[in-house]
Amino acid sequence: MNNFDFCSPTRILFGKNTQKEIGKLIKPYAKKILLHYGNSSIKQNGLYEEVINSIKTHEIDFVELGGVVPNPRLDLVHEGIKLCQKENIELILAVGGGSVIDSAKAIAMGFYYEGNIWNVYETKEEVKKALPVACILTIPAAGSEVSCHTVITNEEKKSKYGYGSQILKPILSIINPEIFFTIPKKQIANGVSDMISHVFERYFTNTEHTDLTDGLCESVVKTIMKNALIVIDDPNNYEAWCEIGFSAMIAHNDLLGMGREEDWACHAMEHELSAKYDIAHGAGLAILTPNWMEYTCSEKPNIFAQFSINMMGVNENRNQNAVIREGIKRLREFYIKMNLPKTLNDVEIDQTNLEIMAKKAVNFESKKNQTIGFFKKLHWENIYEIYKKSLNE
Amino acid sequence: MNNFDFCSPTRILFGKNTQKEIGKLIKPYAKKILLHYGNSSIKQNGLYEEVINSIKTHEIDFVELGGVVPNPRLDLVHEGIKLCQKENIELILAVGGGSVIDSAKAIAMGFYYEGNIWNVYETKEEVKKALPVACILTIPAAGSEVSCHTVITNEEKKSKYGYGSQILKPILSIINPEIFFTIPKKQIANGVSDMISHVFERYFTNTEHTDLTDGLCESVVKTIMKNALIVIDDPNNYEAWCEIGFSAMIAHNDLLGMGREEDWACHAMEHELSAKYDIAHGAGLAILTPNWMEYTCSEKPNIFAQFSINMMGVNENRNQNAVIREGIKRLREFYIKMNLPKTLNDVEIDQTNLEIMAKKAVNFESKKNQTIGFFKKLHWENIYEIYKKSLNE
Repeated sequence: MNNFDFCSPTRILFGKNTQKEIGKLIKPYAKKILLHYGNSSIKQNGLYEEVINSIKTHEIDFVELGGVVPNPRLDLVHEGIKLCQKENIELILAVGGGSVIDSAKAIAMGFYYEGNIWNVYETKEEVKKALPVACILTIPAAGSEVSCHTVITNEEKKSKYGYGSQILKPILSIINPEIFFTIPKKQIANGVSDMISHVFERYFTNTEHTDLTDGLCESVVKTIMKNALIVIDDPNNYEAWCEIGFSAMIAHNDLLGMGREEDWACHAMEHELSAKYDIAHGAGLAILTPNWMEYTCSEKPNIFAQFSINMMGVNENRNQNAVIREGIKRLREFYIKMNLPKTLNDVEIDQTNLEIMAKKAVNFESKKNQTIGFFKKLHWENIYEIYKKSLNE
Repeated sequence: MNNFDFCSPTRILFGKNTQKEIGKLIKPYAKKILLHYGNSSIKQNGLYEEVINSIKTHEIDFVELGGVVPNPRLDLVHEGIKLCQKENIELILAVGGGSVIDSAKAIAMGFYYEGNIWNVYETKEEVKKALPVACILTIPAAGSEVSCHTVITNEEKKSKYGYGSQILKPILSIINPEIFFTIPKKQIANGVSDMISHVFERYFTNTEHTDLTDGLCESVVKTIMKNALIVIDDPNNYEAWCEIGFSAMIAHNDLLGMGREEDWACHAMEHELSAKYDIAHGAGLAILTPNWMEYTCSEKPNIFAQFSINMMGVNENRNQNAVIREGIKRLREFYIKMNLPKTLNDVEIDQTNLEIMAKKAVNFESKKNQTIGFFKKLHWENIYEIYKKSLNE
């Protein structure tokens, strides 16, 4: 096990009616807030009104900025920063999924940053200060409600970059699984794919002696897969949504990666797809992950056998290659049951830009940082192979 | 799943040489600290000197209070409170195991409390303020390095009471598993018994739909049992100690109990034993737990069958009663391998005070609060039965 430094300070209020507590809970932090959200769905399902009522009851002043889209845009972040500065905002309340929360984090650090906040995403320079962010989660997926990460898309440059800092961890996240009942099935599937990937990115490691976190990862993935198949058929199943909402949070609050070298190649490869083609992140991950597994599994077969047996429920009494093949096959079958795309063709990506994206993934132009992934370091040629392999069945 | 409110704000610095960071890490919180510890073992193994060096390097002033004993005493707490007040202490650094940390927490809240701090343990009144506590853990067991709990023994009254508050969660805990190499085998075993019990107290629940936390509990117990058998034979096994140190922390940072009704009857029954006879807490738990299981398992056999299969590795292909009996038998065998006592007679407790202790456990005199445990509510007569059952094999 490697040395580690773990802190997950976000307070999680979880369960029925918890969104009604928001005013009371943020009152100690702010007299005036930015209410940040995506589209009109929170107005249709009544959440917007509940939040406004709670904020007003506790005499918290607010301004609003809606319009966050999936793969959230830098332009809106700039608009949010200006608005917060003009209005002397003290806290940003993100009501939405990962995109809204990521956008809120970008605004939160942009508030104090001198210059274009995009520099931070490009250069990874250390940011020292950010406004506090609180969240009401409307879709479990990205784990941004507990993570230090934010991913923003620069439309102009067709670039999608992430940034992480301890100061970006939300102070509070409210998770009421009842709010998830109205999530469209496509988004359920994309979210599930993303949260499972957050575990895989940590699970596949070169670090030895990781009994505890291996077991925790396996429990989280099994819980997500079992309950994802329930909610995709029965979206009003509160108990199954509880399991998924709780799991998505644990999948990305850093715990599962503690003491382990993590990988993150699939996320990096996917970011190129969604930056270029604006496909859903979870869809891209579902396409790439089994292909990445097949491409890398011969490097360290034991961990793939363990994945097959402990996560995918494959019987261990056969030869290791067969166990691994069966595990990956079951993962593909799960994605199919969730109606996730199988190939790049399914999301209308052909071979045109594969080489360009593979080179961009490793920042090939700048000659720095020429591999991605730690479990198996991938050069652009490897990524290109995985992309090509993902084109067709 | 029940609604829950989770926050685990303690920063965990884990791994080799981490104790050397202590001065740097507490510097922002305090100019003057109380260094609180138990016996001379930290002076013998060099830890004391490393801590003092780090503190001095960062120009932090300090006073010392050693002498904490297992089942930590109220008298020393009073002494610590006076010392901190006289010396204008700003932070308490606990270098030790659960007893030292529990004592530090009592001093931390006593610093601001008007009156005898024992009142808080007796009445459970809400305490609003405490000094910050930081820890360097020398024995993994109690989980006090991340918990909100403190348990103190009032020698005069032969009472042992716990108290919990969010304000008592340490700001920082340093866990270097190398420090565990010199723990005497008896203490290893007692610690392991305590940390496993922290999981059991949460695992046995009447709450339905707890897939995620069931799985996490099972992973933690399996990890502890596997690695406990390693360190008991090979106390210098760093990797196995990492698993145990990490597991002990997760076992008691509240995560495993989120959304579940918890039990805590075994802990309450044991507190009477160690208050009256000053036996080790872990030893008492190892004696009582299998007997509690046998006494309660007919109430809700499914969860005991799940315990047997998923934690104890019992093959599920036989009748449920046999599965449960085999699970409890394996737990007893594990305790025996760890050289933990099997019966109250083994720790020189006879039937003399069993009825008195059973009544004290439910606070029988005051007519309030006449049961303990939530999975199965135990009246004093039930506790008396379990105590009697624990006398002999």
